[in-house]
Amino acid sequence: MAGPYLLLLNGPNLNLLGRREPGIYGTTTLSSIVASVRMMAEGTDPSHHLVDVQSNHEGDLVDAIHRHGFEATGIVINPGALSHYGLSLRDALAAVARPTVEVHLSNIHAREAFRHHSVISAVTTGQVVGLGPAGYSLATRFLLDLVTTPEAGA
Amino acid sequence: MAGPYLLLLNGPNLNLLGRREPGIYGTTTLSSIVASVRMMAEGTDPSHHLVDVQSNHEGDLVDAIHRHGFEATGIVINPGALSHYGLSLRDALAAVARPTVEVHLSNIHAREAFRHHSVISAVTTGQVVGLGPAGYSLATRFLLDLVTTPEAGA
Amino acid sequence: MAGPYLLLLNGPNLNLLGRREPGIYGTTTLSSIVASVRMMAEGTDPSHHLVDVQSNHEGDLVDAIHRHGFEATGIVINPGALSHYGLSLRDALAAVARPTVEVHLSNIHAREAFRHHSVISAVTTGQVVGLGPAGYSLATRFLLDLVTTPEAGA
Amino acid sequence: MAGPYLLLLNGPNLNLLGRREPGIYGTTTLSSIVASVRMMAEGTDPSHHLVDVQSNHEGDLVDAIHRHGFEATGIVINPGALSHYGLSLRDALAAVARPTVEVHLSNIHAREAFRHHSVISAVTTGQVVGLGPAGYSLATRFLLDLVTTPEAGA
Amino acid sequence: MAGPYLLLLNGPNLNLLGRREPGIYGTTTLSSIVASVRMMAEGTDPSHHLVDVQSNHEGDLVDAIHRHGFEATGIVINPGALSHYGLSLRDALAAVARPTVEVHLSNIHAREAFRHHSVISAVTTGQVVGLGPAGYSLATRFLLDLVTTPEAGA
Amino acid sequence: MAGPYLLLLNGPNLNLLGRREPGIYGTTTLSSIVASVRMMAEGTDPSHHLVDVQSNHEGDLVDAIHRHGFEATGIVINPGALSHYGLSLRDALAAVARPTVEVHLSNIHAREAFRHHSVISAVTTGQVVGLGPAGYSLATRFLLDLVTTPEAGA
Amino acid sequence: MAGPYLLLLNGPNLNLLGRREPGIYGTTTLSSIVASVRMMAEGTDPSHHLVDVQSNHEGDLVDAIHRHGFEATGIVINPGALSHYGLSLRDALAAVARPTVEVHLSNIHAREAFRHHSVISAVTTGQVVGLGPAGYSLATRFLLDLVTTPEAGA
Amino acid sequence: MAGPYLLLLNGPNLNLLGRREPGIYGTTTLSSIVASVRMMAEGTDPSHHLVDVQSNHEGDLVDAIHRHGFEATGIVINPGALSHYGLSLRDALAAVARPTVEVHLSNIHAREAFRHHSVISAVTTGQVVGLGPAGYSLATRFLLDLVTTPEAGA
Amino acid sequence: MAGPYLLLLNGPNLNLLGRREPGIYGTTTLSSIVASVRMMAEGTDPSHHLVDVQSNHEGDLVDAIHRHGFEATGIVINPGALSHYGLSLRDALAAVARPTVEVHLSNIHAREAFRHHSVISAVTTGQVVGLGPAGYSLATRFLLDLVTTPEAGA
Amino acid sequence: MAGPYLLLLNGPNLNLLGRREPGIYGTTTLSSIVASVRMMAEGTDPSHHLVDVQSNHEGDLVDAIHRHGFEATGIVINPGALSHYGLSLRDALAAVARPTVEVHLSNIHAREAFRHHSVISAVTTGQVVGLGPAGYSLATRFLLDLVTTPEAGA
Amino acid sequence: MAGPYLLLLNGPNLNLLGRREPGIYGTTTLSSIVASVRMMAEGTDPSHHLVDVQSNHEGDLVDAIHRHGFEATGIVINPGALSHYGLSLRDALAAVARPTVEVHLSNIHAREAFRHHSVISAVTTGQVVGLGPAGYSLATRFLLDLVTTPEAGA
Amino acid sequence: MAGPYLLLLNGPNLNLLGRREPGIYGTTTLSSIVASVRMMAEGTDPSHHLVDVQSNHEGDLVDAIHRHGFEATGIVINPGALSHYGLSLRDALAAVARPTVEVHLSNIHAREAFRHHSVISAVTTGQVVGLGPAGYSLATRFLLDLVTTPEAGA
Repeated sequence: MAGPYLLLLNGPNLNLLGRREPGIYGTTTLSSIVASVRMMAEGTDPSHHLVDVQSNHEGDLVDAIHRHGFEATGIVINPGALSHYGLSLRDALAAVARPTVEVHLSNIHAREAFRHHSVISAVTTGQVVGLGPAGYSLATRFLLDLVTTPEAGA
Repeated sequence: MAGPYLLLLNGPNLNLLGRREPGIYGTTTLSSIVASVRMMAEGTDPSHHLVDVQSNHEGDLVDAIHRHGFEATGIVINPGALSHYGLSLRDALAAVARPTVEVHLSNIHAREAFRHHSVISAVTTGQVVGLGPAGYSLATRFLLDLVTTPEAGA
Repeated sequence: MAGPYLLLLNGPNLNLLGRREPGIYGTTTLSSIVASVRMMAEGTDPSHHLVDVQSNHEGDLVDAIHRHGFEATGIVINPGALSHYGLSLRDALAAVARPTVEVHLSNIHAREAFRHHSVISAVTTGQVVGLGPAGYSLATRFLLDLVTTPEAGA
Repeated sequence: MAGPYLLLLNGPNLNLLGRREPGIYGTTTLSSIVASVRMMAEGTDPSHHLVDVQSNHEGDLVDAIHRHGFEATGIVINPGALSHYGLSLRDALAAVARPTVEVHLSNIHAREAFRHHSVISAVTTGQVVGLGPAGYSLATRFLLDLVTTPEAGA
Repeated sequence: MAGPYLLLLNGPNLNLLGRREPGIYGTTTLSSIVASVRMMAEGTDPSHHLVDVQSNHEGDLVDAIHRHGFEATGIVINPGALSHYGLSLRDALAAVARPTVEVHLSNIHAREAFRHHSVISAVTTGQVVGLGPAGYSLATRFLLDLVTTPEAGA
Repeated sequence: MAGPYLLLLNGPNLNLLGRREPGIYGTTTLSSIVASVRMMAEGTDPSHHLVDVQSNHEGDLVDAIHRHGFEATGIVINPGALSHYGLSLRDALAAVARPTVEVHLSNIHAREAFRHHSVISAVTTGQVVGLGPAGYSLATRFLLDLVTTPEAGA
Repeated sequence: MAGPYLLLLNGPNLNLLGRREPGIYGTTTLSSIVASVRMMAEGTDPSHHLVDVQSNHEGDLVDAIHRHGFEATGIVINPGALSHYGLSLRDALAAVARPTVEVHLSNIHAREAFRHHSVISAVTTGQVVGLGPAGYSLATRFLLDLVTTPEAGA
Repeated sequence: MAGPYLLLLNGPNLNLLGRREPGIYGTTTLSSIVASVRMMAEGTDPSHHLVDVQSNHEGDLVDAIHRHGFEATGIVINPGALSHYGLSLRDALAAVARPTVEVHLSNIHAREAFRHHSVISAVTTGQVVGLGPAGYSLATRFLLDLVTTPEAGA
Repeated sequence: MAGPYLLLLNGPNLNLLGRREPGIYGTTTLSSIVASVRMMAEGTDPSHHLVDVQSNHEGDLVDAIHRHGFEATGIVINPGALSHYGLSLRDALAAVARPTVEVHLSNIHAREAFRHHSVISAVTTGQVVGLGPAGYSLATRFLLDLVTTPEAGA
Repeated sequence: MAGPYLLLLNGPNLNLLGRREPGIYGTTTLSSIVASVRMMAEGTDPSHHLVDVQSNHEGDLVDAIHRHGFEATGIVINPGALSHYGLSLRDALAAVARPTVEVHLSNIHAREAFRHHSVISAVTTGQVVGLGPAGYSLATRFLLDLVTTPEAGA
Repeated sequence: MAGPYLLLLNGPNLNLLGRREPGIYGTTTLSSIVASVRMMAEGTDPSHHLVDVQSNHEGDLVDAIHRHGFEATGIVINPGALSHYGLSLRDALAAVARPTVEVHLSNIHAREAFRHHSVISAVTTGQVVGLGPAGYSLATRFLLDLVTTPEAGA
Repeated sequence: MAGPYLLLLNGPNLNLLGRREPGIYGTTTLSSIVASVRMMAEGTDPSHHLVDVQSNHEGDLVDAIHRHGFEATGIVINPGALSHYGLSLRDALAAVARPTVEVHLSNIHAREAFRHHSVISAVTTGQVVGLGPAGYSLATRFLLDLVTTPEAGA
């Protein structure tokens, strides 16, 4: 892909956003989230693209990280339930070693106990949790700022 | 206090920022962080103030929440090590029940095991973790947007 | 798909039924089980169909639930080993929120410790465990009865 | 007792069915459940009887298993709360070693943590959980079919 | 039973009070405790009775709760060692859903670890622990006050 | 302080009583509770006083116990969230070794798991839990009775 | 009962000895064991009797200990599965505080994990485990020797 | 496939070998490892082939085991991170029940705690851990020797 | 060694018997215990010997089991503190696979928690615990009886 | 403060020394301990001072470390019960990174289980435990020797 | 010892190989294993020797590592049961810091739970587990190859 | 041995001091430590000797404690890795019941988790941890002072 790009990854069941348990996940759809992240990326620098992948298969996400991760300026990832057992996904993120922000729409610390621990977190730069769709924007903003002023995240 | 305000709370040892273990916590000082959060709050709406409290005493933070929490438009809190045992602080935040974002400068999930669990998280709206000083800005941005478009955080 | 239908899902390794460890899983094949579930569904009401999916990929099962789950009159699922770690599968079942019966051929509570806990059970209506191929029939019977007399399962 | 019979056992508090916490346990009474199990047993073969015992005393259930268990064609048991600590009951069931199905009206895996584990399950043939009063019928159906076609449960 | 009544339940070994390990349990006998609870109940209102049951059988206590619990104005229960494993007793108390106070003569939190957790506590209104025979009086006082001023316990 | 006195201690957030989460803690204020405890103490014996301290600082409570604990006829303490981690408070109570009753307004055994264990309980005489504001009165009654008939608590 | 006596207690399912799982429990019946313990007791001293109780009810065993325990020269008890949860039985044995030997026919440490821990052991003098019916004889021998030479057990 | 063959399976992220975290995994590429295993297999007996599969999808590995496992003379598998949660993979290996050696390049016992336990190990013949690429050769050598002298592995 | 013999093993610190902590271990010396076991062995059959080994070295006990265990008619072993961690000792006993009785002078279940579990017990025939020096006699009696009537221990 | 100095910190309840539980903590007062540490510090080098702080407030100790810790030649700290939960104190000590010796008067490893673990220990140079008031002297001696011969502690 | 050498260490009970539990450990004797390892070492390079030590004493193995470990080209060790508790052995191996391969004849991950964890593994280069006597050959091959091509193990 | 003496015990691997992992254990040798402890002992009182034993065998240390412990004026022991599993060593120290100080060169609380717990500590007077070779001197100083002013350690 020509020019710099952000990689946006969404894991299992996130394609249902706006349809699945709106009491927990809200009514915004995934496509509107992707659109607004793309707008932020391109708005900053028209040569900046967004590569976006959603899949219900852990293997697809690993493949996408192998294909797009090494060259990405940053990664925004909402791993869905893979957060809690997707160690292959974790290893893929560790392998490409890019600035990465893990996003969760709901406050996973206020839900079932098995959602309190993410096996992904230790290999990411940081997490934005519980802030709804705004979490994607904040994560994107952080990564774009890193490009222009890398020390901002230090 | 006249007019709306955000409440910014910083817990034990955060007064040392820029001096304490810069390899982990960076070189930005707390006063520069407070200044930039204040600028964001006031920049949005000149009548919007910032109430900022830092203390190494859990009791002081509880007192501050009682005094300023009920009326705040939102709370940004970095509880420092109290994250891991400050149940009185947790109860105070639950009592005022305001939109609250917990911020951690470092990625606590990539550090010692005892730092992986925050007793505060379950009573906050969400968390921004590991994004350095930018975490304060992102949390502030989220809360200020809630005021103008409350459904943004839904 | 025209007309009402049940969704029958079988997870990893169940395609080997009749061939794999017959001492534990018996000698009945999966196709004979599917045939007999289909016969029950259609026997009750000729317009009632069966949609049947077997896959060794968790992602395929999640995709199938997204595609067929929202409209199904009920779901019979034997998650195989995914029972014990397939949290994405769990979230998919929770999202479609249909009457669902989890089936296990063998008595998982009399086998290795890691098989005693199913992460799926909490989001299903109930479980039929250890009754061999008959478990599928009993689960199907329960779901078909729900259609005609919904209060039977109350 | 002349002729073959099924043994139906109900543990502590099940005499309150229809009266106790109907939100969890439904409005069907125990006597209507017993009547319908009896009808199934006798309907299959008029010489087939039902021996039914309900008690709030673990010792009574153990005594009943000693008296009626060795000769029963099968046992349907809802141990109530004894599921979680009644090891004497477990040993009695293991001693008579008959085809046994454990029934729970509610989905114990979606309730309090202490209800997730049954000390009885490992010595039964299987379990039917969360399907309400229908669970008794399905368990009875399974056991009666075993008599006529024993290999059906293999 | 004509007229309102309190239900006083004492579990295994409490019939030995005054005789068993007086260093831990004191020298007051159970009959003197029962007498003084009765006097309080009747002293408040001569039409107010006391139904008192002591048994070393969990099943007897469950039977008593079924027989007398639904109509009682309140229940005072010292479950003895059943506190730590009597889940059938717990379910019986939950089923009748009356104001209930759990009493322990000794401070169970200062004794063996297995006595620190009561499986009964979560379904009672509250507990009075370690205050000796006075615990029964305080519990009775609380329940009688509820009758006259129900909001006192709110 | 001239004359005998009881020490009444209230920990973090209890100053908010009547304002904080009334669904859990009720609508009675702390000052009305203090007033009623004082009335009981002075009503028994006009020379009997009440020393009352509320603080959100663990250190203040420890200081108060050092200053007033050794001479008190008894201590009533609601440690709030410090119950679950305030080991300094525990050591202070152990040091003064006075008759002490721990009070909790709500039934902590029916709330979040972290509230089930109190590190304070093992060094108190006993606990009154879940009986609302009446818990303070009952605890006070117990301690005042001890003064006149010390063996009552044996 | 006139004259000294030993108390022999057998818990749930031990009435089935010789019939239940002979591969684990052997072919000797309970009545032959009781006969041989009686012979040892009376053989030592014709005025020495045996009081023998078997029950599948924990409450019956507690009642028997209350009735016969305080005066017995010693107690031989095989608690069966109550070993693992019968805390009321434990408290009864602790209350009578007589020389007591716990017997298990099979080596409980070589069976299922839940059988490794006995809640009874800590309040007995000692245990004889895994030696089959001979365990009863050895336990009886120990207790009879204590009577004649009490220091033998020191 | 004509003639005997070994099955070589590599799990998630192993396609990155030589590129990913060389400090941990070394600089040898997967293709050079596959080539050297193939050379060993064919060198022993030219009619001996190698079937080699790498995938980031657990389902693909399960499919491959179903297709090639039953007939293979042996299986060499490096499950990558699936070692720690891939229970479907475990069941597939158990189903084909062939001589299987699990290989890990790094010493998983000297890394993060979650890598210390492999859910695969219990159904393999053995493991070679921490010996780098040489581990594949040693595992292959073992399996080839088994073919010529089956008792060598006994 | 000519003729049949019993093997008596005593582990670390048992040479101090009679001297070490007499409140726990009594005043009988090890030599008097050995003498009385020898007398029992030889008294039964003059050709029956006793081989007795005490050592504070686990390796010595393992060596002794290798040298004398395979031919012994039975083994009496008090492993001392090795009971709780001496897995090499356990493996040695398992290797010789002779009738073995584990003896503990004190009731290990009433002492520190780390003494409650013996890693040796699962590979012995049974245990005699807490009966003081008499435990050795009872264990010896059991083993000698096995020789003459092997089925006695069945 | 002019000239080099040691920092001596004492946590909650240590002001009661000599008065509190003398059976555990001895009869020496804190002021005599402080005096003797001061004498050692000044005796070594008259320009060497002692800064001493005792507080029952964790926040005060954190403040003192911030104010005096960075410049101290070493720190002697007895954290009292804060040892077991004072993570803010731990972070303060880690921040100043000076040679630090943790002192406990009693042998915390022979007391209640919750006292066995200190959250402070991992960030100190070492600990002196259970040696009574002498522990302070030994810790002081170690730190003073470090000043003159820094390699002595290597 | 002149010339380079490998160190071969065998722990407790391995001298019994071929005699002890052949169903688990096979029929090959230790001396034939030692002979074949020696042949491999000397076959590679006649000046290469083998130093071989077997002992049932952990201390002997530690002594041997001190004497021969620092100069060895590599160490092959089968620690037997010391694998699970021999921390002194672990420290000795860590101290000499030579390439070390831990060998287990049986698949310890498919046996009792206490055998699943080796305290030795973290300080070795790697492990060969479950491959029978061939495991020694493979480990030896790996170490000899390291000498000629050290990077092979990288 | 004529005259009073201290007993200095060093466990496994401590003979390697100065050679083993100097980054952790420093460069001082054991013989220089022994020499300096001897000098302190004899310097205090020329008739005061030092008995010093180092061994890699737990049994040797137990033997030494039996031989020299009962008469020693005190014991300084660095148990090395036996700290974490040497229960026989623990029992030997408890048996002789002399003033004993446990020394660790490194701060075991800042190392691997398995080093955080010492099974020895509960039976010693106290511990000196992490202060390097100076720890031996401080421990010796403490024990010598006890001889002249026994109450100093109170």
